[in-house]
Amino acid sequence: MQHTISFTHNNKQASVKIPTGALLSDAAHLAGIDIGQPCGGQGRCGRCAVQVMEGTVRRRSTLRLSPEDVEQGYALACQTVVEGDVAIYVPPQEKIERRLTTDRVVAEVTVPEEYEYLQDQTVRRIHLELTPPSMDDQTDDWARLQTAFRLQHRFENVTCSLNLLQKMGKILREGDWNVTAVVDVKNVIESYETDRPIRLLDLQPGMVDEYSPLWGTAIDIGTTTVTLWLVDMVNGQVKAQVAEYNGQIARGEDVISRIIYASKNGGGQDLRQRVLDSINSLLETACKRVNAKAENVVKATISGNSTMMHLLLGIPAENIRLSPFITAVNHPPILTARDIGLNTNPEASVDCLPGVASYVGADITAGVLSSGVNVMDEVTLFLDVGTNGETVLGNRDWLVTCACSAGPAFEGAGVVNGMRATQGAIEEVWINSDTLEPTYRVIGGGKPKGICGSGLIALLSEAFLTGILDKAGNVNLMAGSSRVREGAHGGEYVVAWGVESESGEDIVLSRVDVDNLLRAKAAIYAGFTVLAETVGISLEGVSKVLVGGSFGKYINVEKAVQIGLLPDMDWSRFEFLGNTSVKGAYYALLDWRKREQVTEIAKRMTYIELSADNSFYEAFTSALFLPHTDLSKFPSVVEALTSKVEDQTSE
Amino acid sequence: MQHTISFTHNNKQASVKIPTGALLSDAAHLAGIDIGQPCGGQGRCGRCAVQVMEGTVRRRSTLRLSPEDVEQGYALACQTVVEGDVAIYVPPQEKIERRLTTDRVVAEVTVPEEYEYLQDQTVRRIHLELTPPSMDDQTDDWARLQTAFRLQHRFENVTCSLNLLQKMGKILREGDWNVTAVVDVKNVIESYETDRPIRLLDLQPGMVDEYSPLWGTAIDIGTTTVTLWLVDMVNGQVKAQVAEYNGQIARGEDVISRIIYASKNGGGQDLRQRVLDSINSLLETACKRVNAKAENVVKATISGNSTMMHLLLGIPAENIRLSPFITAVNHPPILTARDIGLNTNPEASVDCLPGVASYVGADITAGVLSSGVNVMDEVTLFLDVGTNGETVLGNRDWLVTCACSAGPAFEGAGVVNGMRATQGAIEEVWINSDTLEPTYRVIGGGKPKGICGSGLIALLSEAFLTGILDKAGNVNLMAGSSRVREGAHGGEYVVAWGVESESGEDIVLSRVDVDNLLRAKAAIYAGFTVLAETVGISLEGVSKVLVGGSFGKYINVEKAVQIGLLPDMDWSRFEFLGNTSVKGAYYALLDWRKREQVTEIAKRMTYIELSADNSFYEAFTSALFLPHTDLSKFPSVVEALTSKVEDQTSE
Repeated sequence: MQHTISFTHNNKQASVKIPTGALLSDAAHLAGIDIGQPCGGQGRCGRCAVQVMEGTVRRRSTLRLSPEDVEQGYALACQTVVEGDVAIYVPPQEKIERRLTTDRVVAEVTVPEEYEYLQDQTVRRIHLELTPPSMDDQTDDWARLQTAFRLQHRFENVTCSLNLLQKMGKILREGDWNVTAVVDVKNVIESYETDRPIRLLDLQPGMVDEYSPLWGTAIDIGTTTVTLWLVDMVNGQVKAQVAEYNGQIARGEDVISRIIYASKNGGGQDLRQRVLDSINSLLETACKRVNAKAENVVKATISGNSTMMHLLLGIPAENIRLSPFITAVNHPPILTARDIGLNTNPEASVDCLPGVASYVGADITAGVLSSGVNVMDEVTLFLDVGTNGETVLGNRDWLVTCACSAGPAFEGAGVVNGMRATQGAIEEVWINSDTLEPTYRVIGGGKPKGICGSGLIALLSEAFLTGILDKAGNVNLMAGSSRVREGAHGGEYVVAWGVESESGEDIVLSRVDVDNLLRAKAAIYAGFTVLAETVGISLEGVSKVLVGGSFGKYINVEKAVQIGLLPDMDWSRFEFLGNTSVKGAYYALLDWRKREQVTEIAKRMTYIELSADNSFYEAFTSALFLPHTDLSKFPSVVEALTSKVEDQTSE
Repeated sequence: MQHTISFTHNNKQASVKIPTGALLSDAAHLAGIDIGQPCGGQGRCGRCAVQVMEGTVRRRSTLRLSPEDVEQGYALACQTVVEGDVAIYVPPQEKIERRLTTDRVVAEVTVPEEYEYLQDQTVRRIHLELTPPSMDDQTDDWARLQTAFRLQHRFENVTCSLNLLQKMGKILREGDWNVTAVVDVKNVIESYETDRPIRLLDLQPGMVDEYSPLWGTAIDIGTTTVTLWLVDMVNGQVKAQVAEYNGQIARGEDVISRIIYASKNGGGQDLRQRVLDSINSLLETACKRVNAKAENVVKATISGNSTMMHLLLGIPAENIRLSPFITAVNHPPILTARDIGLNTNPEASVDCLPGVASYVGADITAGVLSSGVNVMDEVTLFLDVGTNGETVLGNRDWLVTCACSAGPAFEGAGVVNGMRATQGAIEEVWINSDTLEPTYRVIGGGKPKGICGSGLIALLSEAFLTGILDKAGNVNLMAGSSRVREGAHGGEYVVAWGVESESGEDIVLSRVDVDNLLRAKAAIYAGFTVLAETVGISLEGVSKVLVGGSFGKYINVEKAVQIGLLPDMDWSRFEFLGNTSVKGAYYALLDWRKREQVTEIAKRMTYIELSADNSFYEAFTSALFLPHTDLSKFPSVVEALTSKVEDQTSE
């Protein structure tokens, strides 16, 4: 039986017909109303609550709703089924702003040292002069082009897609039998055999200047953030760097929520389209910035965790979530932009970098490549601090890895006033221990809009050292400042009053935010400590700690140690590398030997499954404190706390 | 400015809005009315005439319309532009019936002598047992499958499409890690190197019986007729043979008209879709007949002339028509069904056989393969009698070829009562020289519907020998029979009165039909005689004449010689082989060595361009008579005419 569901949203009306038993969230989707589902429709986050104004519905779950909420007609759209005609009010939805990068996210990157165009980079622009056809030489267009490749460049086996065959005749004649071909010669370079297949990527009439840009792109698909670099493959220079939130966030904030959402009817297709939209919008922005055309981008190298890779390729990801946690594919074949839906040249090679396991994906193999762990003499610890916390330990002889779910808190998601590290983000905070008044620095100057990862770490550390938070993360309401108060989500600390802020509303750190941040840092800390224990290495034996993750580059080491995110060791042993995943993709895009190394890394790395390990849970629980239950592990923090107490005492 | 065009057609009304200057044919297309354009919209055939009932139009051309027609409002839809609101009456359109085959078109074919499944046929069904994943073995699905290929079958390099990767996880688990893969192992067989790529074509859960059918299809795309054979590749047997008119006929009866139509806006896409519809409908019929599923067809081998191949692949064909007559591609790459739009398994390999030149396509290379000219010791003449007449002369050492446009008359198109050789076609005719009364044989018995190619040859020959037609093809209205009369298209001979026929209308051979048939036979005769002259061979030196073309198998040699279609030589030297093109595709489908031979044939064959040759035009003109201007070339016909005269004299 069909029912009419009428929606009121943003002062607009929409109604749809849907059968008995359908979910309100499906009805809203059908009506074109985008209701956020950060938990992926599991009824866990409560963000999809809507108000039933008329008619009755059946609530499968009211978790996250108070009895008062239910009395007022609230229902979770993802958990509520239709049993008759109803009128629904949809409250304004949280906006996932697609802020584009400012200078802050631009990573400094140097062209790889060994980079030599026409040696390590395999996409080549080739100029060909063909003999025009005549009654005496009626060779077909494609054979004529192949002959030119053979005679002028010794390429014996050039292959061509149907799409290029369809355009070839016109291009050859437009260029008056003078054309510029773009090919990927990796097969030939690698084997020194000229009869290995070479794929034709593009064909343009006339002679294109050999120094004009030859566009490629390196893309990192993070669970929270998608980063895209536009690269001129002629000289290896990164011409534009852009990033924005992954459009999938509205359907789940972590990979598990996404996988659950993807396994629902049409969910996989929805998520695939959302990340494609994010990538294509970044591509457009990047191209616009340097006056390039997306259709001239002929190669894309993509890294990202295994779930992101599966969702991008439309490959079911559910076995990643279910024991024994199996990916469908760790080494995807080389695909074309047409296959996957990228708005580059449709023939562009799309090289999805290889991963290791369900929770150690291409972002980590690319990170190992760009951080160089795989070529280190001494034992090195590599941490990727993103929505998932992955750890790699090893050197040129061996590599072990593990993963744990950190959540998106350090990327500014799941935190009330969290945001990415862009214009308007509070990136550093100091709190006066007497007055509890803060001083902060805002990216780009100007009024603050929210707090980014580095700002959150600083805030957590300062609040702890000044006694606003206790070691369990409770807000001390008796701290003696109007900035410390009871808020909607429990105790909170006001970093910026509404009069100072961009939105006019107070910017706060709430108890709920603190919990999210504690879980994130505890997971990461537990990950690397358990991994080191498992292989019998003490953290003292680690010569370097390399920290990846786009926010990593800007965090204050002292403060990261003070909250117990990083181990308490000499600061000189830390290096913060920024987004090592996109950097690895960039190297793999430009240099086929580096690309081979990524495969090598993926094959060499031993994956340690923490979920099969009780010691991880114990380590995680012990780390859910500021800085840790075991203070002997954090001597410098004990010292800082003591000196604060002494300061106060001496006053 | 937009105008409203209202159509009345088959007692229905439809109206569309279209701007000033648009063609009536485009308006009709927009309104969903299918107006036939056998000349491809060149204004030459007059078949798209419609009647303007209200409003005014501008006629660019009234060729094919009489002044009376124009006065009554008739206009050629393809040549008439809209200048205001008009009301149009569309007369009933000639139906291109899609008759399906009866026994008559079923060619007898034997499984190739050398055929051995698991030797020459390269598509294999492979059973694989995988070790199920566990926490101790978290290998990804695709690597697990690749390992099974390597360990159980020594295939080192199996490749897989994105589409199969998307389905793989489900299939592996459905089969409980027990699956049947379908792969094409040609690369490995050919080179004896186990690391050459092998493409995964299909994957099914569980173990599929090795003797259950493994479906492939051989397809011949003729300008007039599309033929499809459904083949069980396990034993090489042809399980179903079907044929129907090429759906492109409505847009042009010969390749030139099609190319012109294709070069118009959207024309190429329309033609591509039409031939795909024909193929897919044949595929469905064939599969239904043997209770197979189209999605289980994993390989298609296609032959057809160069224009048909270009149009199928959506490749612009206009340079085939324009001097110096260049195809875009003679050797298309192996494609997939997904690439081109076949309704087989989307991963199915589609192997479009190679052609030689614009007017000697894969139908001829396949014909040479299946007729064996390329392995003959003695000089052999191969004629393909279709819409185009192609000739090959040669033996195992050399092959030359030429082509000429014969038109579709022998396939029953372009002839008022012509039809394909199916149920209801008059296939043989005798005329009593005294009474001029005919006797005829109908395929399948029953009432006649029309006349097929062999019937037309017989009719032409009998009408000539009995004096109904003179040597120039004029109808002798004084012949003294009510069957010889003045018809709508000039003189005509009534083969079957309305009371005998299926439709209730007279079945006739008209003067226009005779002209079409004369042009067809003259082109073919001129083709092979000029070719032989060019290489300095006399027809006497030809040991065998092999005749391909689906109608060829059923023609009466004596009568074909009497009309001057075939050379006058000992009948034992003729062999009629039927559709040699689909037969060649069938051999190439089953046997990779034969497939290599086709490429070999295409490369070896020397193409002689007749259009550059005045002697062709002279030979053609001389052959536009019954049997020929030079009677010395047809001694047996002279004898027959003489004996007829003697018969009459002796009465």
